[in-house]
Parts: sequence; C-alpha cells; structure tokens
Amino acid sequence: MADLARLSINQATTREQHSLAQAIAAYAGAGVTGISIWRDKLADCGLGEAAAMLKDHGLRVSGLCRAGQFPASDAAERQARLDDNRLAVDQAVALGAECLIVVAGGLPEGSRDLPGARAMIRDGLGAVMDHARAAQMPVAIEPLHPMYAADRCAINTMSQALDLCDELGPGLGVAVDVYHVWWDPDLQAQIERAGDRVLAYHVCDWLVPTTDLLLDRGMMGDGVIDIPQISEWVDGTGYNGLIEVEIFSAENWWKRPADEVIRTCRERMLSSV
Amino acid sequence: MADLARLSINQATTREQHSLAQAIAAYAGAGVTGISIWRDKLADCGLGEAAAMLKDHGLRVSGLCRAGQFPASDAAERQARLDDNRLAVDQAVALGAECLIVVAGGLPEGSRDLPGARAMIRDGLGAVMDHARAAQMPVAIEPLHPMYAADRCAINTMSQALDLCDELGPGLGVAVDVYHVWWDPDLQAQIERAGDRVLAYHVCDWLVPTTDLLLDRGMMGDGVIDIPQISEWVDGTGYNGLIEVEIFSAENWWKRPADEVIRTCRERMLSSV
Repeated sequence: MADLARLSINQATTREQHSLAQAIAAYAGAGVTGISIWRDKLADCGLGEAAAMLKDHGLRVSGLCRAGQFPASDAAERQARLDDNRLAVDQAVALGAECLIVVAGGLPEGSRDLPGARAMIRDGLGAVMDHARAAQMPVAIEPLHPMYAADRCAINTMSQALDLCDELGPGLGVAVDVYHVWWDPDLQAQIERAGDRVLAYHVCDWLVPTTDLLLDRGMMGDGVIDIPQISEWVDGTGYNGLIEVEIFSAENWWKRPADEVIRTCRERMLSSV
Repeated sequence: MADLARLSINQATTREQHSLAQAIAAYAGAGVTGISIWRDKLADCGLGEAAAMLKDHGLRVSGLCRAGQFPASDAAERQARLDDNRLAVDQAVALGAECLIVVAGGLPEGSRDLPGARAMIRDGLGAVMDHARAAQMPVAIEPLHPMYAADRCAINTMSQALDLCDELGPGLGVAVDVYHVWWDPDLQAQIERAGDRVLAYHVCDWLVPTTDLLLDRGMMGDGVIDIPQISEWVDGTGYNGLIEVEIFSAENWWKRPADEVIRTCRERMLSSV
C-alpha cells in the first residue's frame, strides 16, 4: 500500500479543468504533496508566478514535462530543439523540480529511419547534459509505449533508456511509467538494473478495451496493470520519492469535476498502487 | 524489391468484401500466389469445399489463422482451448497450409497476472506440440504488438517467441509481422537468431496518425515502417517463402472494391516491400 504522503498529481490529469494556478491551489488544498507541471500551462501562468505559488502552497514538483523531441529533419531545427531543452532545464531549476522529464521524440517528418532517429536522440541528449549537470537538474528519460515509436518517442523500453544512461553518464536517469512499460517481460530486471537512476515513478492504468491510443488512460485500479507489483520493484531500488498520477482521459476523467478526480487519485493511491 | 511470385494475401485484407470462396477465386484470378485463411471464414465455407477450391485454383496457403488463445480462468476452459488448437492443426493439414499461426492469448478475464498468462501460454503450446509434430504441421508463434498484451497476446517480442521455441523444441517457429515488431530495437538481432525458424513473413504499414488500435493498419508504403530493411533481414535468414499482406482497415481498405485492394497489394509488393 502506497503512502499518501508520496502522492503527486501530474497536472495533465486535470488539464481540461485547471489552469496551472488553479491546479496548484486545488492539489495543495486537497492535501496532495506534489504536482508535475506541463510547459504549455507554465507559459500561460508565467514562470515567476508559478514558482511563487508553489512556494506559497508548499507543493513539491515531481517533474517538469517536458524536454526532448530531439529528432528533426534539418540541423537548424535540431539546434532549435537543443536550445529549447536547455531552456527547459532552467525552468525546471526555477520551479525547484525534482527532475526534468525527457520524451525523446519520434521519426522526423517523412522519415522511416528509426535507427537514425535514435541516433539523433542520443546526440541531442548528450549535447544538453553538460548544461543539465551544471544546473544540477536530474534528467529523466521516459520510455514511451511502443505504440508511440513513430510520432512521439523512439525510446520504447527501459533497456533502451538505461543504455543511454550508461553511455551518456551521470545526471541521467529514467522515469518509470507503468502505462508504458507494464507489458515488458524484462521489466523487473530492468528496474533492478536502473537502481538509483529511477528518478520518477508514474502511475495510471491500462483499460480493456482501450479506445484511443493517447487519451484513454485509466485510473489506477480500473485496468489490468499489476501496479502494486511494479511499485514493489521500484521501491526495491531504494526509490522513495513521489508517486505521480498521470492520466490522459478525454472522455472520462477530463470531463469530471476536478475535486472528484483528485479525491479518486487519493483513494486509489491507497487501494491500488 | 520483392518478387511478385511470393505474394500471398491474408483474406482479412478483404474480409468485408469476400467470403472465403470469393477470396480464393479473386486472388487466384488476379495471379496472386497464396492466401492466408481465417477459421471463421473457413467455418462458413466448409473445410472440404475450401480444400477443393484451393486445389482447383492452384493457390498456396501461407498460413491458417489462428490457433492459440491459451490463457483462461479455469481448467475446463483451458482444456477446451487445447482441443481447439488440435482441431486447428488438423484443419491446417487438410488445407495444405504452410504453417499454423498462433496468437497466444492475453490475460484471462479479470486477471492482472501477466506472468501467469505467459506461463499458461507456454504450457498450452507445449501440450499441443506433440500433435502438431505428429501431423508435421509447423506452428508459428506470432508476437503481437505490446498494445495487445492485455486482450489478445501476451507474447509481444521476437525475443519472447524465440525463447518459447528454444524451450519447446522442434516444429515451432515464428511469424514475423512488421506491424507488430518494427519498433523493436532488438529486431535485427532477433531475426538473425530466428534463422530457419522464420515460418511466415507478414507485411502492412504503421500509419501516422493511427486512429484505432486494431483496425487502422496501412497499405505498404503508406506508413513509416522501413519494410525493405526488414525484408532484407528476413531474407538474410534464408527465408524464401511467401510474403503475406495482412491489413485490417475498417475505414479504408475494407471499404474499397476488392479488385482495387488486390491490385494495390500487387503494386506495393513491387514498390514498397
């Protein structure tokens, strides 16, 4: 049974209901310990205002979403993305985020060269790590489910993410999101391999049936993932940080009152994580 | 460039347009070399009638779809599935199929025990292999994309499928379907590992965006999979059997005239496989 004091809510979970300012106030008001912040919402709020509100409400920031998106068709665009990644590092520092989440990016427009995209990811990540290390901001590679390999993220297993950590050195780690990795027959071994490089732990559930590739995630307990088993493996690495609920749910949770969503996250944290 | 003489069409590609008898006549009439047959369509046609028509039209059968579905909640249901698998072996023999395709099955109703489901798959497959070997019917495990792990197939990588082949011995091999495995960073190595255990090779394409988890597969060339690269790896094992087009496409190809679908399969076999 997970400790309620470790609950963080990714603001995407109430993205249709809340601005960032509203999410900060609502989560803190409900006794939630942490929040994970999206950069589009941050831009609407303003970095200074967000940092001040977080401090006032005593909310921890389990992660900033998101940097990455390294592959692109031409050098100018790849450079623009490196610049944006460095900006994301600075924003994460300003917010006191516990890590910066990297979603690596998929195939460049018109490309079928998956190994090439993966090489661009390695090179791009390598190029921003000096800045991240200097800023002492941990960078968490989040492997995304293989169904996103083309258009969102060509890093699709824990094994791939950890190979990048091995190659690119300190300051890098992984975000373990049960939605993306639950199916992997090698999951337990790779979580053990990660050890103290687990920088974030995200929970939600896989619904049967799943009606949309992106926006039909379930609340913990409503699907088929054995979340307590994965939590045990993650805790076994020594990870004792925040446990972040991240649910994209266009037809269900995004349509419910925010207070119901937050209350359910708290309940399910106790019953199903 | 693939050899047109190696073209087989999985009848699911025209499942909304054709009965089995119609598919056999249409494919053979268009000069297609092979067909892959689904058991629901076979039941409508009748086994004897289908076998006679295949012989009359000189069509090869690249595979029978499908056996498998081993995991179930209780012993009686698991036994019923073993019986059905043995029946499928006999049907494949009667049709002269070059292999029997196994889609292993997902989680039993209400279960979250993925390792348990995988153990049921191993045990079930082991229990039917004596019969398959006696009948000299090659059995091809088809790893399905991880997005089907819950409800269709808990064997989700070539590596898992080949581990089963290693464990369960001769007569077993794999069906390589680009749709399911294209994202796998270990794909080239696992195809090499498969060697002469590649029993079938299936092609279609991954569309961006993909609008449905099951029924939005693309025609070769319309998506992002580097199919010629995978074909080269498969051919590199010595595989020189049929290349089977299998497209589930509720909103596109299933709505087009069958002759257009077959003509496009032939064209794309030359340009994009």
